[in-house]
Amino acid sequence: MLIVGEKINTTKKSISAAVDARDADTIRDVAIKQVEAGASIIDVNAGTRLKTEVADMEWLVSVVQEAVDCPLCIDSPNPEAIKMGLKLVKQKPLVNSITGEEERVDEIMPMVKEHGTCVVALTMDESGMPETGEDRVRVARKIIDMIAEYDIPMDDIYFDPLVQPIGSNLNQGVAFLEGVGLIRDAFPDAHIICGLSNISYGLPNRKLLNRIFLPMAMRAGMDAAIMDPTDKEIMATMLGATALLAQDDFCMDYIRASREGKL
Amino acid sequence: MLIVGEKINTTKKSISAAVDARDADTIRDVAIKQVEAGASIIDVNAGTRLKTEVADMEWLVSVVQEAVDCPLCIDSPNPEAIKMGLKLVKQKPLVNSITGEEERVDEIMPMVKEHGTCVVALTMDESGMPETGEDRVRVARKIIDMIAEYDIPMDDIYFDPLVQPIGSNLNQGVAFLEGVGLIRDAFPDAHIICGLSNISYGLPNRKLLNRIFLPMAMRAGMDAAIMDPTDKEIMATMLGATALLAQDDFCMDYIRASREGKL
Repeated sequence: MLIVGEKINTTKKSISAAVDARDADTIRDVAIKQVEAGASIIDVNAGTRLKTEVADMEWLVSVVQEAVDCPLCIDSPNPEAIKMGLKLVKQKPLVNSITGEEERVDEIMPMVKEHGTCVVALTMDESGMPETGEDRVRVARKIIDMIAEYDIPMDDIYFDPLVQPIGSNLNQGVAFLEGVGLIRDAFPDAHIICGLSNISYGLPNRKLLNRIFLPMAMRAGMDAAIMDPTDKEIMATMLGATALLAQDDFCMDYIRASREGKL
Repeated sequence: MLIVGEKINTTKKSISAAVDARDADTIRDVAIKQVEAGASIIDVNAGTRLKTEVADMEWLVSVVQEAVDCPLCIDSPNPEAIKMGLKLVKQKPLVNSITGEEERVDEIMPMVKEHGTCVVALTMDESGMPETGEDRVRVARKIIDMIAEYDIPMDDIYFDPLVQPIGSNLNQGVAFLEGVGLIRDAFPDAHIICGLSNISYGLPNRKLLNRIFLPMAMRAGMDAAIMDPTDKEIMATMLGATALLAQDDFCMDYIRASREGKL
């Protein structure tokens, strides 16, 4: 499993305040702690800061990159912010994200191609959020057709089948899992990623639900997650699920984590 | 999910001691606590007590049945003990178990038919334990052929695809899940049950692994489990997985459990 550390996001008050104050120590600390806890990629998102996002992205990418030796996920609804992030990154990044909307593809894909980045493709389009598993793989196929001209290796594509809360629509858990399975079958060499915690929105004991959903999604074929790697319990769940799915030889990582008190 | 409470089993020292002493209070207490915690069926197993098993089964069934108003699972390798259990039960029980071995079928199935019970069918036969998912559904099909003459409703059959430890054979987690899925597809009206905790045998933090494996097995199609319903964390996992799989309307059971402090 590839873990994208989600914590450097200005939706969090402490991060937004640190960006305001240009408090590099706080940002560095959050970046380092996520890598130490097992993140392979650090997400950087200043999307809430509409007026200053480009400059904030510039500052954040510089600070994070100086602090940790791993790729970044340049995460923005704003093509200009993505452009700024890509100008600065030193390791092959993940761009978050395109959708099945033509405008978004036309804005983002030339940058993905030029910089040779990985890209997150949300399985939604002009018609809105996907309802069923079949909707999700249909949009995934559509995106693959739309970006064919850019000739991106399948291994650089991270489909995000969009977790939606079961509290609003009970069937969204199963629909997501079905979508993951269908995309895994259709595109065995692509990655599948998601932001897991949306599943539990509006319900009590959210972290419990997230922890239960993770192994189901991994079993369905998800191989990456945007999550908080400093959450010990979800990381222990990830390690256990990796062993149970025979992706951890001799359960070595699991046993080591147990010895180190991480489970 | 149907929960079969596993705790009245003479492999546990406290239970064996209570049986020795004909200490009905202890047995009653274990039975009641399991039902209060969510068990729908109480397993009764005195299989370790080779010389006295039939008399022990007689006593245990009487005591448990007096304590709780639910069906029992008459669990024994010994047809005589099963016979004794079936003589006494007042509600439609679950007989545990037959296999794909002819002798076992010939000994047990006439009793299942006579008493109109449910039956657990382990997906193993003379050739030993199943290796792959395909092995599991092959033995399931074989058993269905072997018991066809008894004309048992499919709804009374509980396949047990035999959880085996990933610590001995890393692939056994995936093989089990594949077996569950194949049996679910082949026999949509049958039940699928297992004793979950064997998955983690020999590894550290066993309960964590069991809790991670449960949602995967439920997603694959398992709808019953022989487990300890007084283990709060595995029960919370079961409730969460039930909601995530859209089997809990409006997440009502999940939300109620949260309010009652059970999660």
